[in-house]
Amino acid sequence: MLINGRSIANINTSVVTIQVMYLKNKIELKSNGIGRYVPLCYGGGMHSPYIDHKGSIPSRVSEIGRVTRRRDPYESKMLPSIKEAIKKCGITDGMTISFHHHLRNGDKVVNMVIDELFRQGIKDIRIIPTALFDVHNRLIDHIKRGTITRIEGSLNGGLGRFISEGILEEPVILRSHSGRARAIQQGDIEIDVAFLGVSCCDPLGNANGLMGRSCYGPCGFLKADAKFAKKTVLITDELVNFPCIPISLPGTDVDHIVVVESIGDPSGIHTGTLKITDDPQRLTIANMILDVMDIGDVIRNGMSFQAGSGGISLALTKLLGDRLRKKDIKASFAVGGTTKYLVSLLEDGLIGYLIDGQSFDMESVRSLRDNPNHVEISVDQYANLHSGATFTEMEDVSFLSGTEVDTEFNVNVNTHSDGYLLHGIGGHQDVAYGSKLTFITVPLTRKGNPIIKDRVTTVTTPGKLVDIVVTEVGLAFNTTNVRKEVRQRNEDLESLCKKNGFNVMSIDELRRTSKASGMDILRKEGNKLVATIQYIDGTTLDSVWSVK
Amino acid sequence: MLINGRSIANINTSVVTIQVMYLKNKIELKSNGIGRYVPLCYGGGMHSPYIDHKGSIPSRVSEIGRVTRRRDPYESKMLPSIKEAIKKCGITDGMTISFHHHLRNGDKVVNMVIDELFRQGIKDIRIIPTALFDVHNRLIDHIKRGTITRIEGSLNGGLGRFISEGILEEPVILRSHSGRARAIQQGDIEIDVAFLGVSCCDPLGNANGLMGRSCYGPCGFLKADAKFAKKTVLITDELVNFPCIPISLPGTDVDHIVVVESIGDPSGIHTGTLKITDDPQRLTIANMILDVMDIGDVIRNGMSFQAGSGGISLALTKLLGDRLRKKDIKASFAVGGTTKYLVSLLEDGLIGYLIDGQSFDMESVRSLRDNPNHVEISVDQYANLHSGATFTEMEDVSFLSGTEVDTEFNVNVNTHSDGYLLHGIGGHQDVAYGSKLTFITVPLTRKGNPIIKDRVTTVTTPGKLVDIVVTEVGLAFNTTNVRKEVRQRNEDLESLCKKNGFNVMSIDELRRTSKASGMDILRKEGNKLVATIQYIDGTTLDSVWSVK
Repeated sequence: MLINGRSIANINTSVVTIQVMYLKNKIELKSNGIGRYVPLCYGGGMHSPYIDHKGSIPSRVSEIGRVTRRRDPYESKMLPSIKEAIKKCGITDGMTISFHHHLRNGDKVVNMVIDELFRQGIKDIRIIPTALFDVHNRLIDHIKRGTITRIEGSLNGGLGRFISEGILEEPVILRSHSGRARAIQQGDIEIDVAFLGVSCCDPLGNANGLMGRSCYGPCGFLKADAKFAKKTVLITDELVNFPCIPISLPGTDVDHIVVVESIGDPSGIHTGTLKITDDPQRLTIANMILDVMDIGDVIRNGMSFQAGSGGISLALTKLLGDRLRKKDIKASFAVGGTTKYLVSLLEDGLIGYLIDGQSFDMESVRSLRDNPNHVEISVDQYANLHSGATFTEMEDVSFLSGTEVDTEFNVNVNTHSDGYLLHGIGGHQDVAYGSKLTFITVPLTRKGNPIIKDRVTTVTTPGKLVDIVVTEVGLAFNTTNVRKEVRQRNEDLESLCKKNGFNVMSIDELRRTSKASGMDILRKEGNKLVATIQYIDGTTLDSVWSVK
Repeated sequence: MLINGRSIANINTSVVTIQVMYLKNKIELKSNGIGRYVPLCYGGGMHSPYIDHKGSIPSRVSEIGRVTRRRDPYESKMLPSIKEAIKKCGITDGMTISFHHHLRNGDKVVNMVIDELFRQGIKDIRIIPTALFDVHNRLIDHIKRGTITRIEGSLNGGLGRFISEGILEEPVILRSHSGRARAIQQGDIEIDVAFLGVSCCDPLGNANGLMGRSCYGPCGFLKADAKFAKKTVLITDELVNFPCIPISLPGTDVDHIVVVESIGDPSGIHTGTLKITDDPQRLTIANMILDVMDIGDVIRNGMSFQAGSGGISLALTKLLGDRLRKKDIKASFAVGGTTKYLVSLLEDGLIGYLIDGQSFDMESVRSLRDNPNHVEISVDQYANLHSGATFTEMEDVSFLSGTEVDTEFNVNVNTHSDGYLLHGIGGHQDVAYGSKLTFITVPLTRKGNPIIKDRVTTVTTPGKLVDIVVTEVGLAFNTTNVRKEVRQRNEDLESLCKKNGFNVMSIDELRRTSKASGMDILRKEGNKLVATIQYIDGTTLDSVWSVK
C-alpha cells in the first residue's frame, strides 16, 4: 500500500477506512481519482478530491456577484498613499488580499503593500498572488513575524524552498492560471482587497500595461481580481489624463488609485532564458517534435499552437516558423507567453493572430501596443474550463516541459525530485486540458537524476491529458486516453512514426532507459502538509509534504 | 390638487392617504420626489418612487451572478435554426427574452424570433428589447394573439402609438440605456434567453459588429444581456474561422449560435436625419449654444463633449469643429451616437478619441473598425451611475433635445403633447446626469404647439439635471441646482451672457413667450396605465396613461 509512491510503513500514517482514508500527522487524507492521497479540509474550507481529467461540473450555478461600485461622481478615486488605501479599504487582521505577477521578478507592488501592512501592525493576512518570484523573498520575514499566515498562489524559487521546510501552518494552495481565475469567479476565494500594479491609468481607473515607463504588456491576469475583489486598488507610476486608451482594465472595476514612484522594473518580465538553445540535445528534441508534427500533418495551413518561453520552446517557435515559411503556409493563431520570436512570426505573416496572456520581453509589449493582430485576452478567455469559449481548446498543438514525467504520463512541474516546491503550475494544466495534441519535452536525466519516474513526486498534470513524451533518445505515445478519437489518433501517429524510423518506445521502456542513465534522488519527506495542488476544476490533485 | 398637471376633478381618482396616495382605475399611485403620481407595483414587482436626481443607493450590494457556462469542449455551440435554439433553451410560456437594437430600423432578428415563438404556440412572453422601431410593427399582431404580453424597452413610432391605446395589461417599462444595463446587472430584470444579432462571429461565439455584410458598429448595448441572461443565443449571417478578431463580445458569454440568411439591413442604422440642418432657426440655436460655450470658456484645449444625431446636434458637431480649428486647439474626447461628422473631426485631429456607444452611419462603422482612436465601450462604461467609472461624468458639455420642457426645467422626450408614447428615453437621462453642462435645445413651438409648458406631459429627465434651455428666441438658465458649484457656475454664466447681449430670459418668461406663439394641445387622457418611466437608478419617475 503506497502513499505518494512510498510504502506506508515509512511514514506516520494509519488506515482509517479501508484503502481510501489515511491519517498522516492527524490530517485526514483520501485517495483521489489518480490514486493520490489528498486532504479534504484545508485553507479554511472543504475541497473535493480530483475525479478525472474531464473536470467536475461547477458546484455553484453562478459566479459570485461583484460589489456594485456605488460612488458619488464628485468623489475622487485618488488616494495619497498605500497606507491611506489600506485604511480606506478597512483592512484588518485575517483578511485576504491579492496581487498579479505581470511584472514578474521586477515587481515592487507586493513588497510595498506587505511592508505597509506590517508597519500598521496588521496580522494573519492571506495573500493570493498569481505568482511570487525571488524579488519577493523578503516575504519570508513577514511570514516569520505573522503578517502573512496563508498563501494561495504560485511560488517560484526561494520562497518555495522556505515553504517546503514547513514554516506555514496552513498549506499553500497551488492553482493553474485558469484554475485561479475560475476559483475567484465561482467564489472559492473571496478577495477583500486586490492591489494591482498598472503601468498607466486615468483618474477613473481605466488602465493598461502597454504605456508608461513600467509597461509590462497585457492585463489578463489581474482581471478576475479587479472584477471580483470587494475593493480594487490600482497602484501606478503613470497617471494620464482621462481617457486612458486602450482600456485593458475598465475603471468600472476599480475603487481607488494610488500613484507611487515606481511599480517595478519592466526588465524583470524576462523569465528564464530568452535565447534559443544551442544545446544539441535540446535541438534534437525540438526537431523530433517538428518531424512528428510533419508526419502527422499538423503543420498545415490554418494550424494553431501554444508557445512559451524557455530554450526548447523558443527553438520550436523559430523552427516551426521556418517550416511554415518553407511550405508557404500560415498558422491561424498562436497563443503565448509571447516573445520576440513569436512577434517576428506575426510580423513576417506566418501567423494570423498572436494571442497574449503575458509578455516575456519588450518586443512583445511594443507589438501588443501597436499591432491590431496582436491581441490581449483574459485568463477566462484563455483557458477557464467553465467559461465556455477558450483559446486553449482551439489549439492544434502545444509543447510543455516538466521536472518529472512518470509511466502513467503524469507530469510534475511543481516540485523537484528532492521534494522542494520550486515552481508554480502556470498554464501547464490549462494547455494540456485544451490543446488537441500535447507534447511533453524532457531530458532523460538532469544532473544525474532520471526524469522519467515510476511515479512523479507530485502530480501537476494528469497523464490522461498528455499525448507524446519526447526525450533526446526517443519518444513515447500515450494511447490510454479515454476519448476514442484521441486514442486512435495517437495510435495512428505512433505507427506512422515507427514506419518513419523514429525511436518510438513504450513509456516503461523510456523509464528503464532514463533510470539506467542515472540514479533516482532520495527524498526525505517530512510530516507536514506544505501545499496542495488543485486541478483546473478546483478538486485536489495532490499533496506536497515538507522536506526534512 | 393636481395629478400630472391636471386637476383631480377631471380624472377618475380618489384620495387614499392625504396628499400622497391616489387610486386611479384601481391602481394605487404615490407621489414621488418630483411630484408625479406613480404606481408602486407593476411589471410583476415592487418599484420605489423617484427620490431625487442624485439617484438612490443600490438596494443590492452585488450584481446578479451569471450562470457559469459549463460545456463539454467537444460539444458544438452551433444550432441549425432559431426553432432549434428555442427548443434547446427550453423557452416556455411566461419567459423573458431580450434583444438589442444596433441594427435599429434595419433589424430582422426580433421579428424572426417572435414569429417562431408564435409558430411554436408559446404565449405570454415578456420581451426586453433595448429599442423597437417601425420595422417591428408586426409585433402588434403578436400582442393581439397573446404571444407577447409584456414589454420593457424603448418604443419608437407605430408600436408606441398602439401601446398608447391601452392594449397591454401590464404597463411598458421605459428605462434609459444605462438604466436598462444597470437593471439587468442588479437583477431587476432576469432574462431567460437573449437573442443577439451579430454581423460576424466564430464557432465559439467571439463576435463583433464591425465585419460581415450586416455590420453595424459597436456591441455596447448587447453586453449586459449576453453576460447576465441565463442563455445567450447569437444570430449571425457571417460565421468566420476562429478566432473572430476583434472580440467585441467574448464567446465566454455565449451559449449557442444560429446562422441565418440575414440579420438585417445595415442601412437601417441611420436614425432620423443625417444631414446638417439648413433651417435658419435651428442654426440660430446651434450658434447661440456655441457662443455661450465660448463666453463660458468651455471651448478650450482638452474639452470633451457628447454628440448625437439629429439636425441641430450634427450642426453643433460641425460648427464646434470649426471653432476648435480656428482656435487651433483639440478636444480630448467626444462620445457618440457617432456620425461621419464626428469621424471627420477625429480624422482631422480635432478630437483625441471618439468613444462609440452606437453608430449611425457606415462611415462610423468603418472608422471604428480601422482607427485605434475610435473606441467601443459598453453601456456600463458609458453611463451606469453605479459602475463607478463613466464617460458621461467626464463630459464637459452635452446637447440634448426634447418634445417638451417645463418651467421647472423638466424635459419630456417620451410622449408628445397629445399623450402618445412615441419615443424611448435613449441616453437622455444618462447624459444629463453625467455631463457638467447640459443644454436642452427646443423650438418655441412645433406645429403651433408651444414646447415650453407649465408642466411637461411626462417627465423623462428631471429639471435638476438641466443647465440651460435654448430656443430660437432666447435662453433660460437653471440656477436651482442643489450643488452650489453648479448653481454658482450657472449664475455666473447667466450674468456673462446678459452682459454680452444674449436674450437671457427666466424659464417663466420663456414659457409665456412659447405659450403666446401657439395654442397648447388638448390631451385626452384615458384611465389605463400604459407605461412607467424609470429613472437611471430604477426608481419610478412618471406614469404614462392611455390616450382616449
